[in-house]
Amino acid sequence: MLKIAMLSTGEEVLHGDIVDTNAAWMSRQFFEKGFSLSKRTTVGDIMSDLVEELMMLSFNMDVVIVNGGLGPTTDDLSSAAAAKASDQELVLFPEWLETLKAFFQKRGVPMPDSNLKQAMLPASSEIIDNPIGTACGFKMLINDCLFYFTPGVPSEFKMMVDTQILPDLQSRFPEQVGSDCSRLFTFGTSESGLSDKLDKVQLPQGYMLGYRSYLPFIEVKLFGPKGDLDTRVRLLQLIYKLIESHVVSVDESMLDHLGHLIAEKKLSVSISEQSTQGWLTNWLHSNERAASFCGHTWVLSGATEVGTKDQDSLAAAFALSGATREKCATDIGLVTGKVEEDQFTVALSTPQGEWGQQLKFNRTFTKQDQKELVGTIAADMLRRYLSGKPVFVNYSSTTTLKEMHLPANVL
Amino acid sequence: MLKIAMLSTGEEVLHGDIVDTNAAWMSRQFFEKGFSLSKRTTVGDIMSDLVEELMMLSFNMDVVIVNGGLGPTTDDLSSAAAAKASDQELVLFPEWLETLKAFFQKRGVPMPDSNLKQAMLPASSEIIDNPIGTACGFKMLINDCLFYFTPGVPSEFKMMVDTQILPDLQSRFPEQVGSDCSRLFTFGTSESGLSDKLDKVQLPQGYMLGYRSYLPFIEVKLFGPKGDLDTRVRLLQLIYKLIESHVVSVDESMLDHLGHLIAEKKLSVSISEQSTQGWLTNWLHSNERAASFCGHTWVLSGATEVGTKDQDSLAAAFALSGATREKCATDIGLVTGKVEEDQFTVALSTPQGEWGQQLKFNRTFTKQDQKELVGTIAADMLRRYLSGKPVFVNYSSTTTLKEMHLPANVL
Repeated sequence: MLKIAMLSTGEEVLHGDIVDTNAAWMSRQFFEKGFSLSKRTTVGDIMSDLVEELMMLSFNMDVVIVNGGLGPTTDDLSSAAAAKASDQELVLFPEWLETLKAFFQKRGVPMPDSNLKQAMLPASSEIIDNPIGTACGFKMLINDCLFYFTPGVPSEFKMMVDTQILPDLQSRFPEQVGSDCSRLFTFGTSESGLSDKLDKVQLPQGYMLGYRSYLPFIEVKLFGPKGDLDTRVRLLQLIYKLIESHVVSVDESMLDHLGHLIAEKKLSVSISEQSTQGWLTNWLHSNERAASFCGHTWVLSGATEVGTKDQDSLAAAFALSGATREKCATDIGLVTGKVEEDQFTVALSTPQGEWGQQLKFNRTFTKQDQKELVGTIAADMLRRYLSGKPVFVNYSSTTTLKEMHLPANVL
Repeated sequence: MLKIAMLSTGEEVLHGDIVDTNAAWMSRQFFEKGFSLSKRTTVGDIMSDLVEELMMLSFNMDVVIVNGGLGPTTDDLSSAAAAKASDQELVLFPEWLETLKAFFQKRGVPMPDSNLKQAMLPASSEIIDNPIGTACGFKMLINDCLFYFTPGVPSEFKMMVDTQILPDLQSRFPEQVGSDCSRLFTFGTSESGLSDKLDKVQLPQGYMLGYRSYLPFIEVKLFGPKGDLDTRVRLLQLIYKLIESHVVSVDESMLDHLGHLIAEKKLSVSISEQSTQGWLTNWLHSNERAASFCGHTWVLSGATEVGTKDQDSLAAAFALSGATREKCATDIGLVTGKVEEDQFTVALSTPQGEWGQQLKFNRTFTKQDQKELVGTIAADMLRRYLSGKPVFVNYSSTTTLKEMHLPANVL
C-alpha cells in the first residue's frame, strides 16, 4: 500500500492561530481519489525541526505533500530545509525568476529583493507552476520518497493540488482506486446505540462502517469498493432497516433533505421561536430551497407570556403554531416553545392537523446545544410530516412527557 | 526545553471529514500557558499506525496529548494501542464502570454492553475524570514520556484540558512560564492594513505581536512577559491609538462587550432581520446579558416589500427600525435590510434619534459570510451608539453609499 503523508508547516498553524483547513481539504480530496493519507504532521518554522521531520517522513513514506513555508520572508524555510535534508545546494531557477519579474511588472511595481528567494530551489527540484501567486511549488526525491512542496495560501494550494499534484499521482500510480462511501445521517440516538444495532451486520471483505459524531447528528458511513453497486445497495437496505427510526437523510444532510422535501411539496413555512431564538430560522435559511419557502418568523422574547394563565405550556405552543400559520398565511406553522427548567415544547400546524409535544432533556446541555437540539426536533417533526411518517418518535437525549395531536377535521 | 506533542486520532480527522478544531484550540491554550507544542501529528484508526506513532512520540517527546479514540465502538482503539505500546494488559477499572452504570441509570436506560470497553484501560493508567461524558481520560508513562489520553468530543476534551491537564502540567513543570497576552478585537479592517500601522511600533525585548484572523474579526494579540504591567499598559495604549477606529473590544469578544454595554445602559432592543435571517438574533442571544434585554424579533421573508414602492431601500430600513422599536415597545430598534445584488442597508432607532446607512460589498462573499458581515455591522452601530462614539465608520470590506441621521428632536 502506498504510504502518503502531509506535513503542514508554520508557527501560526502549530500554535493554533490558524485552523489548518488546507489539511482537512486535501485529506478529503486525496481520500476520495484513492490516495488515503496514512499520517499528517505539523511543525513550526524551526530549521532543525523541519529537517528532522522531512528526514523521518522520507524514510517511512512513499509520497509526502509539504504545505507552507515558501513565502519571501525569513521565517519561510521549506526550500532551505529540503536542500539540507537532501544534502543539496539551493540554486537559482532562472525560469521562475522570469515569471516573478513578469508578475511584478504586470502590477507596475519593481520586484522586491525579498522575492528573489522564491526562485532559489534545491538543485534536483522540478518546478510546479503557480499561476496565481509568487511561490512556485516544486517536487523532488529525498531518500527515494517523492516530495511535493506547496504554498500555504489556500487558493494557490488548492489549485496546485487539483490541477497538478493529483493528476501527477494518478499517472504515476494508476492502480490506486478510491473507495465509495455511502452516508446515513441519524438524529436522536447515540453512537453506542447505533453500534449495538449495527455490530451484528456481517460486512463482506472490503467493506467498513464508520461513525462521525457531531451534535446533534451522527453520520453512519459505509465504505466499500468502487462500482460494487449490488452489494452496496443490499447492505444499505440492511443497515437502514436496523436504524430506520433515527435516519433523517441518506447521502445528504438533514437540512438539504428537508430543503428538497419542502420544495417538492411546495409548502410555505412560518415559524415562531421562543427557546431557539433565531437559530431555527437561520439554520433553515442556510438552505436555498428551504429559504425560498420560508415566510416570516417571530422570535419571541423570554418574557413573553403566550396563551392564558391557566393554559399549560403544551397547549400554549399548540395554539401558537396555529396562530403563526394563520397570521403569516403559510401552509405550515412551526413552533419552539420556551425552555422551563429542563422541559420544552415543540409544535407543528399543517393543513392535515396539528401536533405538539412536551419533552424533557435527559442530561445537561449548554444553552447553544439546547437550541440546536430543540430546533432540530422541531425540524424533524416537519421532516416526518412531509415524508408521511409518524410525527412523534423517541429521541435518546430527551424523554417525551406529553403528546397532543388534532387531525384537521377536528379543528 | 520541554518537548510537547499532540496526536489526533481517527479516520474522520485524518481523511478530512472533520476539521481538527480541537488541535487548534489546544495548541493556543498550551502556547499561552507557556507549554508551546513542538509538533502535532494525526493518524487514523489503524492499530499498527497508532502503536508506531505512540512509540515514536514516546522516544522523541516529554509530554504527549492524545485526542480521540476513546469511544465505545470497535474503531476506537486508543486504549488498546496504549496498552500495546507500553506492553501492558487492558484491565477493568471498577471505579469507572460504576460511574458508567450511574450515568446510564440516571437516564433510566441499561448500560449498552459496548460501553464496558470504556472502563478497560492499560494497567498502569490513572483515570482523568470526565464529568460530562462516558469516556474517561487517563494518563500514563510510555518510555518515560508522559501521555494524556483524552476524548474527541470537543466539550469533553476542552473541559478536561482546562480543569485537569493544564493544572497538572503547571504543578509538574512550575518553571514553564507562559507569556501574558492582551487582545484587541478589531472589525472592518484587513490584516495587512493593521500590520502596516503596527509595524512601526518599537516593541521592547520579550514582546511580540500576533494576528488571528477569523471573519469578520481580526484579533491583535500582544504577547509579553508575565506581570510587567506598566510596559504592557503603555504599549496597549500606543497600539490602541493607532487602530482605534477599528477596535470593537479589548480582552473580551465584541459580543461580550456588547452584552456588558446593553446591561449597563439597561436598554431593551428589538430587531427586524431581512438579510440576516435570524443570524443576528441568534448571535445576540448567545450572550446571556444581551439576551435578557432582547425584545421580539421579526425575521421577514425574502418576498416582503417593506415601505412604499417609491421609497428607496435606505428610507425603508429607516422606517422599519422606527416601527420595530415602536411596535415592540423597546428602547431601541435594530434592522438589517434586504441584500440586493451587492448592496444592503442597516438602521438603528434610539431615544436619541435614528441612523441608517446603505453599503456595498467590496468583494464577493458567500451567503453565510454576508449574513455575518451585515449582522456585525448592525451590531457595531449599536455598540458605537451605546459607547457614545460616532455611529458611522468606514469598513474595509464595504463602501458606504448613503448615510442618514435624524436626531430625536427632528423626528
